[in-house]
Amino acid sequence: MTALYDVAAIGNAIVDVLASAEDSFLESEQLTKGSMRLIDEARAQELYARMGAGVEASGGSAANTIAGVASFGGRALFVGKVATDGLGEVFTHDIRAIGVNFESAPLAGGPATARCLINVTPDGERTMCTFLGAAVELTPADVLPEAIAQAEILYLEGYLFDPPAARAAFTKAAAAARTANRTIAFSLSDAFVVERHRAELLAFIDTEVDVLFANEAEATALFQTDFAQALGHLRGRVKIAAVTRGAQGSVILAGDGEQQIACEPAAQLVDTTGAGDQYAAGFLTGLAAGRSLADCGRLGSIAAAEVVSHFGPRPQVRLKDLAAARGL
Amino acid sequence: MTALYDVAAIGNAIVDVLASAEDSFLESEQLTKGSMRLIDEARAQELYARMGAGVEASGGSAANTIAGVASFGGRALFVGKVATDGLGEVFTHDIRAIGVNFESAPLAGGPATARCLINVTPDGERTMCTFLGAAVELTPADVLPEAIAQAEILYLEGYLFDPPAARAAFTKAAAAARTANRTIAFSLSDAFVVERHRAELLAFIDTEVDVLFANEAEATALFQTDFAQALGHLRGRVKIAAVTRGAQGSVILAGDGEQQIACEPAAQLVDTTGAGDQYAAGFLTGLAAGRSLADCGRLGSIAAAEVVSHFGPRPQVRLKDLAAARGL
Repeated sequence: MTALYDVAAIGNAIVDVLASAEDSFLESEQLTKGSMRLIDEARAQELYARMGAGVEASGGSAANTIAGVASFGGRALFVGKVATDGLGEVFTHDIRAIGVNFESAPLAGGPATARCLINVTPDGERTMCTFLGAAVELTPADVLPEAIAQAEILYLEGYLFDPPAARAAFTKAAAAARTANRTIAFSLSDAFVVERHRAELLAFIDTEVDVLFANEAEATALFQTDFAQALGHLRGRVKIAAVTRGAQGSVILAGDGEQQIACEPAAQLVDTTGAGDQYAAGFLTGLAAGRSLADCGRLGSIAAAEVVSHFGPRPQVRLKDLAAARGL
Repeated sequence: MTALYDVAAIGNAIVDVLASAEDSFLESEQLTKGSMRLIDEARAQELYARMGAGVEASGGSAANTIAGVASFGGRALFVGKVATDGLGEVFTHDIRAIGVNFESAPLAGGPATARCLINVTPDGERTMCTFLGAAVELTPADVLPEAIAQAEILYLEGYLFDPPAARAAFTKAAAAARTANRTIAFSLSDAFVVERHRAELLAFIDTEVDVLFANEAEATALFQTDFAQALGHLRGRVKIAAVTRGAQGSVILAGDGEQQIACEPAAQLVDTTGAGDQYAAGFLTGLAAGRSLADCGRLGSIAAAEVVSHFGPRPQVRLKDLAAARGL
């Protein structure tokens, strides 16, 4: 069946607040650099009061990825839950403005739209504290199986393993994609998410996942071993695994094959927020278009290099133009 | 009397929404590139719906300048009106986080916090549409003469000539600064503002202003003549006039003297929003510290070069460090 969408994504619908911070600030707030921590609204207000001047930008891991897919010219659908508030309007505006179909009903009378407070240290690394708010109210009712079945690839973020109702929505979407014989792609999202849900994640990967995205820390956390051994465990467990390694590029495993993809040089390293998300955007766009895995990896690297060159988790230029300028 | 602040600023308290746009979008929306237009809330919603994906960042011309002064390490006070809403919290957080004293009471039960919808074209030029909202409710009661008297320099933005009550607040502040024998600095803000209020602006400049900031378009609009003649009219009308000319740098007039200040090269030209505001920040910081006019101009140019290199109207690095790295 011809698909209506290249990629459908399900994820936490979040607006980011990004501020520059010194390493000493992470220490005094007892935050682990590079990680994502869940916080409640009271803690979010306390932390925000102590953070530096910020910029607000739509975020959410899978939402960033689907925005990247649309920026590459891909046909894109997003499912996620905002509230009927100002930040919910911002999220909705931004994802639609970049060309993504987003029709999930906003939540009225419940918690506020999710916020992620992101402190960016001078090395460009981002450290995130997320108040999930309305995002935890994503339920199976928000997933329309007939819409999911219309996408070549279903993309799911590991962060959805935290809110229980969202995980059920996630399972429903995977079943719809499986029934329609579509590809299911999944990102491990964060090493602490992996630690929290390791057994369930492994079971989900073994039964449902075709394409797995992970970074080095997540892959080693999943198998509680070193990087070389983690790659060994991944091989054959999924059809395709793409493991990102920051400045060292990425490794793509498929069957017995292994390909090393070089990191695309960034104009400058300002803020790594969204680097993994945009890598996935390029990779999935290439995959949906039937490109070689090497080209998929290159598209991912191009998108990641763009997003780390400025504050914020989504592309500021059309990724389609950037890819074309590089002959892809 | 020793001053508690280097600079006190009064201006519209605004949160910016910045999005990339093609030139054809400005044409279809009938917007004049580089200008600021006032719009009502309904038009703001319509325009926002058609704009691209955006980022939100605290703005407001004099507010950007005072944030720049604080970033240079200057002691800074801001007076302006937000509402008790989400954007009002963002504005208040950001200006305090950068080190500015901001204690103006927010407006409850009235219009929303002011928003400025900014379309940034590929040439980096910004075109602004402002819904003033709560900012028009700034009144003389918000100006505490004893606080204004505590600042070496009072800085006022020409945009405040639009809301009538704000103009009265502005006049009250100028009287307080004059009584305390302080310096009064003023920015013409926008060529259309100048067209709307030309006679009143000239009268205000002649009676109250010591230091005038203008760009080329504003200076020629004020005297309805060419640039060379406009400089002639400015000479002697105020103690100091600093006229910015984009990539051509700036001209500083003081008494019979005239100094040309070169433009500081920017790492990249992304978004000119806040360029004039940050020039004023550097200049005023230098002036309050008793530096030479050439150094004031250089500090202004350094701040302007930083802000045009990224999206958003306020510095993303500490201007104090940037100035030190350049030996200032």
